[in-house]
Amino acid sequence: MRKQTKITLDEKEMPRQWYNIAADLPGTMNPPLGPDGNPIGPEMLAPVFPMNLIEQEVSQERWIDIPEKVLEMLYLWRPTPLVRAYNLEKALGTPARIYYKNESVSPAGSHKPNTAVAQAYYNKEFGIKKLTTETGAGQWGSALAFATSLLGMECKVFMVRVSFDQKPFRKMMMRTWGANCIASPSMETQAGRDILEKYPDTPGSLGIAISEAIEAAVTDKTGQTRYSLGSVLNHVILHQTIIGLETKKQLAKIDEKKVDVVIGCAGGGSNFAGLAFPFVLDKINGAEIDVVAVEPASCPTLTRAPFAYDHGDVAKMTPLMAMHTLGHNFIPPPIHAGGLRYHGISPLISHAVNHDLIRPEAIHQMECYDAAVKFARTEGIIPAPETSHAIASAIREANKAKEEGKEKVIVFNFSGHGLMDLVGYDKFFNGELSDHSLPEEDLAKFTEILKGYPVPTR
Amino acid sequence: MRKQTKITLDEKEMPRQWYNIAADLPGTMNPPLGPDGNPIGPEMLAPVFPMNLIEQEVSQERWIDIPEKVLEMLYLWRPTPLVRAYNLEKALGTPARIYYKNESVSPAGSHKPNTAVAQAYYNKEFGIKKLTTETGAGQWGSALAFATSLLGMECKVFMVRVSFDQKPFRKMMMRTWGANCIASPSMETQAGRDILEKYPDTPGSLGIAISEAIEAAVTDKTGQTRYSLGSVLNHVILHQTIIGLETKKQLAKIDEKKVDVVIGCAGGGSNFAGLAFPFVLDKINGAEIDVVAVEPASCPTLTRAPFAYDHGDVAKMTPLMAMHTLGHNFIPPPIHAGGLRYHGISPLISHAVNHDLIRPEAIHQMECYDAAVKFARTEGIIPAPETSHAIASAIREANKAKEEGKEKVIVFNFSGHGLMDLVGYDKFFNGELSDHSLPEEDLAKFTEILKGYPVPTR
Repeated sequence: MRKQTKITLDEKEMPRQWYNIAADLPGTMNPPLGPDGNPIGPEMLAPVFPMNLIEQEVSQERWIDIPEKVLEMLYLWRPTPLVRAYNLEKALGTPARIYYKNESVSPAGSHKPNTAVAQAYYNKEFGIKKLTTETGAGQWGSALAFATSLLGMECKVFMVRVSFDQKPFRKMMMRTWGANCIASPSMETQAGRDILEKYPDTPGSLGIAISEAIEAAVTDKTGQTRYSLGSVLNHVILHQTIIGLETKKQLAKIDEKKVDVVIGCAGGGSNFAGLAFPFVLDKINGAEIDVVAVEPASCPTLTRAPFAYDHGDVAKMTPLMAMHTLGHNFIPPPIHAGGLRYHGISPLISHAVNHDLIRPEAIHQMECYDAAVKFARTEGIIPAPETSHAIASAIREANKAKEEGKEKVIVFNFSGHGLMDLVGYDKFFNGELSDHSLPEEDLAKFTEILKGYPVPTR
Repeated sequence: MRKQTKITLDEKEMPRQWYNIAADLPGTMNPPLGPDGNPIGPEMLAPVFPMNLIEQEVSQERWIDIPEKVLEMLYLWRPTPLVRAYNLEKALGTPARIYYKNESVSPAGSHKPNTAVAQAYYNKEFGIKKLTTETGAGQWGSALAFATSLLGMECKVFMVRVSFDQKPFRKMMMRTWGANCIASPSMETQAGRDILEKYPDTPGSLGIAISEAIEAAVTDKTGQTRYSLGSVLNHVILHQTIIGLETKKQLAKIDEKKVDVVIGCAGGGSNFAGLAFPFVLDKINGAEIDVVAVEPASCPTLTRAPFAYDHGDVAKMTPLMAMHTLGHNFIPPPIHAGGLRYHGISPLISHAVNHDLIRPEAIHQMECYDAAVKFARTEGIIPAPETSHAIASAIREANKAKEEGKEKVIVFNFSGHGLMDLVGYDKFFNGELSDHSLPEEDLAKFTEILKGYPVPTR
């Protein structure tokens, strides 16, 4: 007879603190640099973020209390279930025990609201009335729209034009939550106008949209507008650690003592780090865990890109950050995992990869769609294209365990459902999708731009 | 300080039996009638349903065990949370305590999988390899596609053409789960061909799609195909009672002793009855509870239609059932709540309404969309258009409690999310929606057809 399928936690069992890995990482992090090449101080970020979030961004405290009001918003869908993937295990014939943390149960359908409600809360506490942000496929924009609607704040979302035109449904979600979503590049910012003048038919990019959103925040004359980012930064990843902290409590609850593999898909890195960092802490303390960050083979930030200082956006409005980066002008191939096409990745993750605490892995999209369909037909939930990368990796590990005849424990982050991304599935079934490798010469071309920048230490 | 927001149950606390209200309803139910006007025997349904489900359909047992294998499938998302709508209460300034049962967390996004997994299971047990069904907006078709994929069965869905064309995403969900979804009327059945010959441009209807799905099942020469219905019938409603049974456990867990109002939206009636019937049992036993079935004012089955014998489908393939019905040729106005446009409603609900155990209420769609947007912006989840009817009614009750200064307890069924129905919201915001009343003369015209049929007793 089966044991428990779905391990739930009561609200009272939800973690009351976030975990800040900055307190535990070995070596020294390379600081963000300003235009003069010197480390930036908190005051330089003040026009962009509220000071309470800047303090979190640079904090070295290991544990940071979650405010009561943030807990109350999280309770709307958290704690999320940890599910034993019995059906998938059976279909694979693996001796591995596979668990997935189901972050798709949030109102916006992904892990993104975990940080959206926290960021909206801290901004409101600081007196901010309006947030600006960018969004690619729309997961982050809709999460922030959801969070600001709960707190009665304004929200303006710059959505990459190609997604704005091709994926109208995320835009409608944002509108339902009261946010104002416009296509990027737009005529509302200098950054947008500059790009449109040069490339009137541009499909847009996340890097451009970030430039526009930052500009819209810092040029607002009321002083009550700030910018909000959905991944990459330290405070974003901090807020996501509730995923891994809950997971550890859930595994303890069913007496699952030893985790062998922890997996998440990685674009900017927040869902991956959210699950993984509490396990990386165990690894730092001596546990043997294979922690896997899975990225698309077509956007190989961790597996092939250099570790370098780079901007987070096209218009170079962000500080220089030390990270694995494909260059801020990188144009990703047209794969469907919109959330995994960013040119850079979290500096914390980059640092942890450099110190062998995380193993990066790149998988092509056809294998990911295969895995996603297998998952949908066994476990029932249709995965987001981003999430399918974690599933594909989990299936690889489960098959490895089968070959080795080992009872491994595999945990992966089911970061979001694919109900807003069904066109990709349709194309997959129609045979219209294929794999895209990034040619060596393109990688060289895109990263050429990094040559003039300061060089971070490993 | 707030009490608990989200009341969860562990798998071990999930009910192990369904509640069959047929054992407790006062008076005598009018039996389904065959073409000869006489009550049909189980054997007459055998070409359509497997015998184990027919036994449930006619059972008078109060409690029916849920098979272990069905429990295992339900565990993928059940027990579902009961949520205290603190934010909505605050926005309304009501002294009422509002709870909603969140059925939207299922993989298909609604309550429909509760019966889909049970029906698929019983069919498989009976040796059936393939199920046929109809679907309007696609909630039911996708739920059955999900269930059959878990059990490795084939599934064919006849989808009302207007939805097939206008709502491609539900169709893609079904495809992802491996089901074959085609537009109805189709050329694959006699019923479909007849309609297409007369009305080549017909948008289709649920009544036509049911005819096609039944025909496809009973004419299959292998004998291994059966038909599956997502609402109306006794066994479907039986499977949905897990909603109300869980809700009662959850209310007991937080010591909420007395429920004043129980609300669900009602099309065929399954989500409403699923929540309400366990509370109707209390009412039969003397408790004072206002049990409200909410329907669209444009499709006023319970509030304005006669109680009569009628077919469930256009081609009159189903037995005659005693129910409130707008006539099987009813053509509903173009409102967005696709799941609430059926001409009839569950005979069990009709009977309970006739015995004053349930209070029917009709609400127009603009009030429902208003309520849905208010809910989305306070509680976070974007409701299905069907579900918005229950929300609108709950808001009415909460406002009434405010006027009366009473601390009422209101429980409603959040039957599904609206992520596949965002076009309706967009039209609402664009001012493109309006209310549709069914003119008295149209009601008379559609129900004219019932005149030749046997008359049920009240």
